[in-house]
Amino acid sequence: MAGASGCVFCEILAGASSAHQVWEDDACVAILDHRPLFPGHCLVIPREHHETLGDLPAALVPPLFTAARRLARAAESSLGAQGTFIGINNRVSQSVPHLHVHVVPRRRGDGLKGFFWPRHPYTSPQDMARVAETLRAAAAAEEQG
Amino acid sequence: MAGASGCVFCEILAGASSAHQVWEDDACVAILDHRPLFPGHCLVIPREHHETLGDLPAALVPPLFTAARRLARAAESSLGAQGTFIGINNRVSQSVPHLHVHVVPRRRGDGLKGFFWPRHPYTSPQDMARVAETLRAAAAAEEQG
Repeated sequence: MAGASGCVFCEILAGASSAHQVWEDDACVAILDHRPLFPGHCLVIPREHHETLGDLPAALVPPLFTAARRLARAAESSLGAQGTFIGINNRVSQSVPHLHVHVVPRRRGDGLKGFFWPRHPYTSPQDMARVAETLRAAAAAEEQG
Repeated sequence: MAGASGCVFCEILAGASSAHQVWEDDACVAILDHRPLFPGHCLVIPREHHETLGDLPAALVPPLFTAARRLARAAESSLGAQGTFIGINNRVSQSVPHLHVHVVPRRRGDGLKGFFWPRHPYTSPQDMARVAETLRAAAAAEEQG
């Protein structure tokens, strides 16, 4: 699959644009984010251009997340991270429309407010059960591939 | 592998504690988060107790993220989500020390400030290159398995 025209990650993958590469294999590449949440924040990017996780072919799921696991381990073993944050923005809040997995080194008290966002509770137990049933039916109906 | 004593997710997986399950397969289960960022926010949880992504055996990486992909697709197809946020807190900010992948339905303008956190730029190009080299060496040295 050729790179998508105008995609900054495809340009980096084609060597037309520079980046600090920290990992590569047949399926993906990891580079440093140029605007890191913390030093060592990297992006694991499939070589093929797919916009979101939902769009990623089944065969590319294992190598992408195996590489993310590798980088998460490396952040702890080499950068003194106490943990990591792994994140993907699919479409909404997605800065570059080419799937990328953020791997962010974390330390306790580092100020990253990962899950202090406002919560939106269910309005009732029935509401929660209804959402569960909707999602359950849709998940069961999703085709693999 | 038996459930870890006192682990709330192992209790749910053993049926000792209730939850709204939305997906299950041999390797993992997905349940609704009881304090959702948005309705339909679910957690994909490996049946085996492992604390972080780095701890997850290689063989369990594909099924966990294939299920996360399935739930991300289901959120869009059934709940009117325009996109999703996928997140994992490894150790730091991790509420339950049993690996879980958040799959959060998103809409534009929903107020989730995923990546408006403060950035911590590199102090110099040399600093960035040094971090890249450190991470690159550590990633290459990570054993699979």
